[in-house]
Amino acid sequence: MDKIGKYLFLAEPFHCDFSHRLFMSHLGNHMLNAADFHSTERGFGMTYLNPIHKTWVLSRLAVEMEEMPVQYTKFFVETWVEGAMKYFTNRNFRVVGEDGRVFGYGRSVWAMIDTDTRQPQDILAIHDGAIKGWIETGKECPIEKSSRVKMSADASIVRTIDTGYSDVDVNGHVNSVKYIEHVLDLFDIEWHRTHRLKRFEIAYVAESHGGDKLSFYREETAEGEFCVRIVKSPADASGDVEVCRSKVKFINI
Amino acid sequence: MDKIGKYLFLAEPFHCDFSHRLFMSHLGNHMLNAADFHSTERGFGMTYLNPIHKTWVLSRLAVEMEEMPVQYTKFFVETWVEGAMKYFTNRNFRVVGEDGRVFGYGRSVWAMIDTDTRQPQDILAIHDGAIKGWIETGKECPIEKSSRVKMSADASIVRTIDTGYSDVDVNGHVNSVKYIEHVLDLFDIEWHRTHRLKRFEIAYVAESHGGDKLSFYREETAEGEFCVRIVKSPADASGDVEVCRSKVKFINI
Repeated sequence: MDKIGKYLFLAEPFHCDFSHRLFMSHLGNHMLNAADFHSTERGFGMTYLNPIHKTWVLSRLAVEMEEMPVQYTKFFVETWVEGAMKYFTNRNFRVVGEDGRVFGYGRSVWAMIDTDTRQPQDILAIHDGAIKGWIETGKECPIEKSSRVKMSADASIVRTIDTGYSDVDVNGHVNSVKYIEHVLDLFDIEWHRTHRLKRFEIAYVAESHGGDKLSFYREETAEGEFCVRIVKSPADASGDVEVCRSKVKFINI
Repeated sequence: MDKIGKYLFLAEPFHCDFSHRLFMSHLGNHMLNAADFHSTERGFGMTYLNPIHKTWVLSRLAVEMEEMPVQYTKFFVETWVEGAMKYFTNRNFRVVGEDGRVFGYGRSVWAMIDTDTRQPQDILAIHDGAIKGWIETGKECPIEKSSRVKMSADASIVRTIDTGYSDVDVNGHVNSVKYIEHVLDLFDIEWHRTHRLKRFEIAYVAESHGGDKLSFYREETAEGEFCVRIVKSPADASGDVEVCRSKVKFINI
């Protein structure tokens, strides 16, 4: 089996925004699916891990696009493991059209945890470090790695939302893809009409649960570049905790 | 070509709720995709209509499920036209597993409008009433048609939300699928944990736009049966307008 997995997706009409191009949140979802398919086919996916009480947890995702696929476009998400250490693995993505045109790239960092204790697990202990046999170093991913999102104390709170049934995934946590939606909803439609999202970056710091209130702090750090901090206020009033940091870069259209 | 279209979908993990079963909103999306594929393959889909300044508009959707597919299940959405009149067409759905097990059914009503004037168009004028050649009356759809959702003046307002970038579809309107999410979010996770959604019904009355405020009025009309009215307050303060009515039926687990 090839080290690189390649999966076909369709830019479905209801997954496209007003500009007729795929939403970043749905592209993120396709990337997570591609990661899941790739790891399952190679013996280290959720279907192997869950019965032994382990799971993959997405720690960071960065996506940089030259162009978003237009509705009804078929495109491939390619994915491969770039590196694997004891507690983290790096997985890359390339989004490419049927005609070979490159739409963009992604980088992600994953941890493995025990589903009972929620503690980090040694990735290299799975099948005697078998993941190392799947590392692909020859394939280029010419976008910057995720950087630490630095925010000053001046960031102002721009929105607070209640999370509910539709926000929550099979683990009972607010779904990684929903955070992407919520961050991009901080920018109004007029902004999206005059700016194209060039790069989206998110680091997942802690888990939040359905029913938690999420507050969004935003700061403009360069022209068209914004940092966002998401803080949860749990329903049980156990105190505010930072759950995510995100950085988005827009360019003028 | 068969009158009945049959399309394969996967219950993707991020499209499943905390019970590991497909969200009704994503099933609704798959049904709309199936409708789109079916009509396009038969010459009366969006790709034919949009260049001649016409489009299909979903007017009603009712879905009734015996069971929702569990994550990673592959299933088919079958769809066919049950009837076509001048201003409305009825399209049915059957959701069936690869092993032939029936998960549930759907019924929908569609209108055709002119994309410039937004006025209803004569469906039977398209290709000399060609849609009539695709009517399938032999296939059973054993669920009730949508009923008029009757609500008293006593329905209380239970939530108000701001719509934004992620709510809006390629036409600039709040996406039919997002309304399903918003209605089901009126019920908290504890409710969903102890009740299974048996039937979901929605009637689209008027269009709403990104930036509109949506208010949700809810009334319990029988045990586990709720009617919901959605009213928009447009950003331009042009006055409140009813945009949707929905009826949901839950059964105790």
